[in-house]
Amino acid sequence: MSNFQVCDGDISETLLFDYLTADGLAVDTETMGLLPWRDRLCLIQICDPKGQVTAIRIAKGQKEAPNLKQLLEAPNILKVFHFARFDIATIRYYLGIEVNPIFCTKIASKLVRTYTGKHGLKELVQELEKVELDKTSQSSDWGNASNLSEDQLNYAANDVRYLLNVQKKLVSMLEREDRLELAQQCFSCLPVMVTLDLLQFQGIFEHH
Amino acid sequence: MSNFQVCDGDISETLLFDYLTADGLAVDTETMGLLPWRDRLCLIQICDPKGQVTAIRIAKGQKEAPNLKQLLEAPNILKVFHFARFDIATIRYYLGIEVNPIFCTKIASKLVRTYTGKHGLKELVQELEKVELDKTSQSSDWGNASNLSEDQLNYAANDVRYLLNVQKKLVSMLEREDRLELAQQCFSCLPVMVTLDLLQFQGIFEHH
Ligand SMILES: Nc1ncnc2c1ncn2[C@@H]1O[C@H](COP(=O)(O)O)[C@@H](OP(=O)(O)O)[C@H]1O
Ligand SMILES: Nc1ncnc2c1ncn2[C@@H]1O[C@H](COP(=O)(O)O)[C@@H](OP(=O)(O)O)[C@H]1O
Repeated sequence: MSNFQVCDGDISETLLFDYLTADGLAVDTETMGLLPWRDRLCLIQICDPKGQVTAIRIAKGQKEAPNLKQLLEAPNILKVFHFARFDIATIRYYLGIEVNPIFCTKIASKLVRTYTGKHGLKELVQELEKVELDKTSQSSDWGNASNLSEDQLNYAANDVRYLLNVQKKLVSMLEREDRLELAQQCFSCLPVMVTLDLLQFQGIFEHH
Repeated sequence: MSNFQVCDGDISETLLFDYLTADGLAVDTETMGLLPWRDRLCLIQICDPKGQVTAIRIAKGQKEAPNLKQLLEAPNILKVFHFARFDIATIRYYLGIEVNPIFCTKIASKLVRTYTGKHGLKELVQELEKVELDKTSQSSDWGNASNLSEDQLNYAANDVRYLLNVQKKLVSMLEREDRLELAQQCFSCLPVMVTLDLLQFQGIFEHH
């Protein structure tokens, strides 16, 4: 794979300074499952606008990653996720990082692709980038960090590789439909949703 | 009923200046049903810390209420609702009023009364104020504004009469459990939820 590297625990200073020059970064995580308080964070993938992908292996018991923290909290760099609610919860829970500012391609898709109910990353990349993502490694053992297979690393890289292009196209659509501001308002609610999720509150905004 | 008055369309200037001296107001609405875009707003009830209750009848087709707008948008007066999400939607939809700042006793109750699943106004008033609310008029015809029954007006007044006391007690509990800031963060998400509700978006923050 071109433009792809794997690091352990954090990104280097050199990589940090390079990524800090980006105005937007695609970010994704791989974990042991869907419950942050049970299922540990294993991998964080980042892709910049030049297509430079880094996968950072997070060790069991690791509690911080200072360079990643500086990058993911940098107020002038937009962090683009697909279903940000999950990734920012696990990143906050395991590394104490308050990711900000945030763009979520799943929320953007739901707000503007009102002609479909399919808002998975695979469908988005297919419709907007005409690329077929291979999702076979999605449910695999990400805990075995030092021995990730080529397929797994490929999968992890592809989950961020197309995201900035998808985001740009969604922004154009949101602008066209006058929903960009609403999308930004939704993104600004995400840190609150994550706090509620991590406390295991459910349905706080519902009537029932 | 003491301290209770009914007005048509808006509050008077005199009443506005009186209410503008309050630091908090309890607010509730009665409508023709639960769908704002179908079921019109019929009544808005307000109660100040002195226990002064006003019920404002909203006419069919009415599009504004300038004094109410000034009051409900006053940045230094907290507007306390039970299930604010519904009331601020109908008030925005019918009168173009952006209620702010907001406190919701249902959200506060869910965040701090974690020992129960009962977060209805009746249960809250019962536990915190030791008062038994009569809810028989809840589902009644509020569209017949000029002929509201004594029971209906009593019901409408009682829905706001205990709310500020309930709110104060919930604030103490939230402070005790270190959840007041979280509550305020939730309240700040409410205008966004309302925008989504009025556009009939559902599950924007969910994975599915
Ligand atoms: N209940 C759930 N079901 C499936 N995926 C969920 C989920 N809650 C969070 N996710 C996350 O959402 C991503 C999939 O989104 P989508 O289905 O829209 O493509 C997954 O990330 P990965 O693809 O990095 O594993 C997964 O981690
Ligand atoms: N799905 C729903 N079911 C019942 N009440 C709902 C509702 N959605 C909004 N509401 C509002 O929530 C209030 C009742 O809240 P609770 O059940 O917690 O006491 C009602 O106000 P009113 O009491 O002014 O009619 C009603 O207007």
